[in-house]
Amino acid sequence: MKNKIMILPILFYSTLAWGQAKSIQERLGYPKDAKLVIIHADDLGVSHAENAASIAAMEKGSVSSASIMVPCPWFPEIAAYAQSHPGACLGLHITLTSEWKYYKWGPVTAKEKVPGLVNKNGFLYSSVDSVYQNASASEVETEIRNQVLRAKQFGIDPTHLDAHMGTALQQLDYFKAYLKVGHEFKIPVFIPRQLETPLKVKFDTMVSDKDVLVDYILSASPQDFKNGFANFYTNGLKNLKPGLTYLIIHTAYDNEEMRAVTIDHPDWGAAWRQEDFNFFSSPECKKLLNDNNIYVITWKEIRDKIVRK
Amino acid sequence: MKNKIMILPILFYSTLAWGQAKSIQERLGYPKDAKLVIIHADDLGVSHAENAASIAAMEKGSVSSASIMVPCPWFPEIAAYAQSHPGACLGLHITLTSEWKYYKWGPVTAKEKVPGLVNKNGFLYSSVDSVYQNASASEVETEIRNQVLRAKQFGIDPTHLDAHMGTALQQLDYFKAYLKVGHEFKIPVFIPRQLETPLKVKFDTMVSDKDVLVDYILSASPQDFKNGFANFYTNGLKNLKPGLTYLIIHTAYDNEEMRAVTIDHPDWGAAWRQEDFNFFSSPECKKLLNDNNIYVITWKEIRDKIVRK
Repeated sequence: MKNKIMILPILFYSTLAWGQAKSIQERLGYPKDAKLVIIHADDLGVSHAENAASIAAMEKGSVSSASIMVPCPWFPEIAAYAQSHPGACLGLHITLTSEWKYYKWGPVTAKEKVPGLVNKNGFLYSSVDSVYQNASASEVETEIRNQVLRAKQFGIDPTHLDAHMGTALQQLDYFKAYLKVGHEFKIPVFIPRQLETPLKVKFDTMVSDKDVLVDYILSASPQDFKNGFANFYTNGLKNLKPGLTYLIIHTAYDNEEMRAVTIDHPDWGAAWRQEDFNFFSSPECKKLLNDNNIYVITWKEIRDKIVRK
Repeated sequence: MKNKIMILPILFYSTLAWGQAKSIQERLGYPKDAKLVIIHADDLGVSHAENAASIAAMEKGSVSSASIMVPCPWFPEIAAYAQSHPGACLGLHITLTSEWKYYKWGPVTAKEKVPGLVNKNGFLYSSVDSVYQNASASEVETEIRNQVLRAKQFGIDPTHLDAHMGTALQQLDYFKAYLKVGHEFKIPVFIPRQLETPLKVKFDTMVSDKDVLVDYILSASPQDFKNGFANFYTNGLKNLKPGLTYLIIHTAYDNEEMRAVTIDHPDWGAAWRQEDFNFFSSPECKKLLNDNNIYVITWKEIRDKIVRK
């Protein structure tokens, strides 16, 4: 999800609750000023190192939710885990790109049916821009639906949908397709309030009381990595605002496999992912969450209390 | 290539040279009693660990040739290596199965065109028997040709074709398709003499003086692994016969990735592959080859001196 940060770089402080009379805290039954956070690991399925570290960070650390890339090589491994752990909060990281240099994947839909999504080698495009230049919203809708159907075929009941590298979010017709498929399967979709401005839209015309808007995003940048993640995340958690924050991380081990996957790309690379794992597996992180009265919630809770209520 | 050993378990001692007036030694310009061996690493492209170890074993060890699984996730990495190392002897390990538990791949052909090759999840079947029960020779021919075309699209000029788990070899109509595609692209194909009996065929009716028959196969069994590979390979190399021996190994590192790929399957597993790497990267192996007057040759030499002469 290398490029996601490009359009989601900062916390967005809004007190509005478009289209929704009650606050997210009230809807979920928390104190009205509660600071809610979903600590979310992206990119499951991309590699064994990502699966193994993310499972450990969920089972033993503070990660509350994660999302799976259905087209990726290690999807069957995490799908088997999801099936045998129905309590785990595992959604789908809708994947329309294949961004690494030597390790690639294609769409789950037959390439002939989504020609605009694939490059000359039959892989998804490396960059978000190439997707926007080539794929129609109809192709994107087909692929999103087929990723959901394939996940269900593998025994996953997705807790939510979000968007790898933000691709399905950052163009209005794609966003509508993504929202449509979420509604179709009664799966909550990640809708960041801050997207209203770039999408030039008012979400209150598009969502219902079955949708949940995410108030704030907290996600590290390459500069934060250089300065040290412990500082960045400690500061971020200490300064959470009341409302729902989506804390986006990427947990993997800095091993041979992951260094080869992320070769020539230190940003969101293997060492980066190990640092995310280290922080969110630490006792210090648990203490911070506790000391700052932060409620760590899940998409599963949102799905079951709101979307499928 | 877990099951290949099941039908190719022993050395086959034949002095016949079906369909070919001159011996392989004469055709390649070696002394007529020379012991020729291709030390061959299978399964490149399956994982990063397999690629990295096999490249090291070729560049620094005694491995002379290797073959690539085009449908696998790490194919682009080894294809980039092949393109930048045109002197390396890299063929195609024609892949009609996807045998591991949580790490899978499909055919390179559109699934709609080869329905008999794919299981309900769109992957190649796990077992050779399932392929035989479901896929027509015509589908197999299409897939083999498309694996060659895809390799060429990625800049590979294959030095040879061989067969993952023996699938393309062990049924006559598949074998004919495999031979046909090899001839079509002027790529030597691995034809073990010992297959005449199970295939109930005489190769001299099928091959020309542009083909090369492999006289002997040397490949370790699970029992050999239990007894120690150093013993097995040392003994095998000391007892090579004049003629062409195909020494089939699998070189990878025993790391997290490879243990996850081969989970629940110690035979041909991560430790097995590390042992293969260790032996064929050792100075002892080089000394054995030298002391026993063994000529280590390549498929590239066969391709360029015989098939494309």
